[in-house]
Amino acid sequence: MQPPANSPQPTPASTALIGILTVSDRASRGEYADEGGPAIRDYLTEVLTSPWEARQRLVPDELPAIAAAIGELSAAGCCLIVTTGGTGPAPRDVTPEATESVCEKMLPGFGELMRSVSLEFVPTAILSRQTAGICGRTLVVNLPGRPKSIRQCLDAVFPAIPYCIDLIHSCPLQPGEPAAPRLETDPARLIAFRPPA
Amino acid sequence: MQPPANSPQPTPASTALIGILTVSDRASRGEYADEGGPAIRDYLTEVLTSPWEARQRLVPDELPAIAAAIGELSAAGCCLIVTTGGTGPAPRDVTPEATESVCEKMLPGFGELMRSVSLEFVPTAILSRQTAGICGRTLVVNLPGRPKSIRQCLDAVFPAIPYCIDLIHSCPLQPGEPAAPRLETDPARLIAFRPPA
Amino acid sequence: MQPPANSPQPTPASTALIGILTVSDRASRGEYADEGGPAIRDYLTEVLTSPWEARQRLVPDELPAIAAAIGELSAAGCCLIVTTGGTGPAPRDVTPEATESVCEKMLPGFGELMRSVSLEFVPTAILSRQTAGICGRTLVVNLPGRPKSIRQCLDAVFPAIPYCIDLIHSCPLQPGEPAAPRLETDPARLIAFRPPA
Repeated sequence: MQPPANSPQPTPASTALIGILTVSDRASRGEYADEGGPAIRDYLTEVLTSPWEARQRLVPDELPAIAAAIGELSAAGCCLIVTTGGTGPAPRDVTPEATESVCEKMLPGFGELMRSVSLEFVPTAILSRQTAGICGRTLVVNLPGRPKSIRQCLDAVFPAIPYCIDLIHSCPLQPGEPAAPRLETDPARLIAFRPPA
Repeated sequence: MQPPANSPQPTPASTALIGILTVSDRASRGEYADEGGPAIRDYLTEVLTSPWEARQRLVPDELPAIAAAIGELSAAGCCLIVTTGGTGPAPRDVTPEATESVCEKMLPGFGELMRSVSLEFVPTAILSRQTAGICGRTLVVNLPGRPKSIRQCLDAVFPAIPYCIDLIHSCPLQPGEPAAPRLETDPARLIAFRPPA
Repeated sequence: MQPPANSPQPTPASTALIGILTVSDRASRGEYADEGGPAIRDYLTEVLTSPWEARQRLVPDELPAIAAAIGELSAAGCCLIVTTGGTGPAPRDVTPEATESVCEKMLPGFGELMRSVSLEFVPTAILSRQTAGICGRTLVVNLPGRPKSIRQCLDAVFPAIPYCIDLIHSCPLQPGEPAAPRLETDPARLIAFRPPA
């Protein structure tokens, strides 16, 4: 339904802040270039049509550093934080534990689907411990470290992400809290599913 | 093997008590009619052929209220409690946390299968955090809020529920504790699987 | 690349120690023969071509006894511990809880895949709560109790196990800590996947 001509214009969609957090000992020491962060940025550029800005961070595989970075990106207003790296079974891999330590709610369906999709490519997909959760008003999603796996995982879970962000902001907001950004995608590339109201 | 003619008759199957717990702020304030609870009741009426009685409750999306209702329905002798609502990622959705808070054991396979089945219909199925667990002698299963999704989920997991209830009661019972009710289903509608002894 | 002729020879692959832990009240009381432990041993004999030795244990369904056995097998140098039994919903089934109590990291993908594979055979597969985790330098994997299910589950997850053990030992080892054993499988029977370096 069209609003009457003299009604207040709808608030323009605010720019979505999206945190991209690379977790890697070697990249944080400068021993090699971060490939995961740029792969996530390229993916979002390709898929999103609504305005957004990246907030990029790079930390070593240390639980307190990862947890602090997620908390800071959330406090800065990111509606979404995507991490890359640190989800495997090696002793230094602690990204899922750091994520869980700062999230009030976990969303096990993200990890289940990403592992299930990766299993079509490699049997070692079951070694990935990646998960997702909600930290304040922010959806946090762990991705693996390799650019090819990042794309496979995002193709699987991204259709549910815009609606998830809507729901995270569905309750009465604090006074002064900004409205949720509405993420829109290029439907020729990826359809963001929102159920009919 | 037939029991000898003069042996005590087997105890007739007791009537199973099944708790149906609707979790909804709006339904509990009377702002709209509970649709999930009746959908579960209709489903059980359609599928079960053994005697059963419903114990229905309606609570708001508050962890203590949900946990208390599960505990009371379990103490009242329900062999099964089915919840509806409060399993999503919104700030008020806390049914899985309330369930986990009163269960000694969790059964992650229920949530995995329900999400997997729902994924065939909507990509946002991964946002559901529903789970199942065991509280005392009671199996607790979380379902989503929408009647259509309730039926899809129950069709997926109900074949395993009667045997699960048998197993929960498989250990020496407390003195005076009633025997487990044996749930039987209409095989033309749904086959309850019990492995050969 | 061949090492130069006068370089130190590579250390020969050490013999892998593999713990096989049967969890069963009745088998531990001698009321019936352990079938799960021998089924795991037969499977490993069939699949592994690199040198290995079994360390077998049998404990009742008691959390402290299971946790202690896992800890002792890990301390004895097992790179892998496979448990059988105690993963269901019955009151005495506590193997997953015991496993989680001694593991620093959990690997939910193992349980997800094993349940998913078992679901092709029986709808009650969702009742299995089996999981996997890492205790020190040891991968711990829970299996069900029945020999047929053990083989189905191992066929599903074993392709990822040798690489998982490599990763668990990928960080700088303690002084004096032995190198990781490299598990090799008979490719005609089962291919152990390791990603190209």
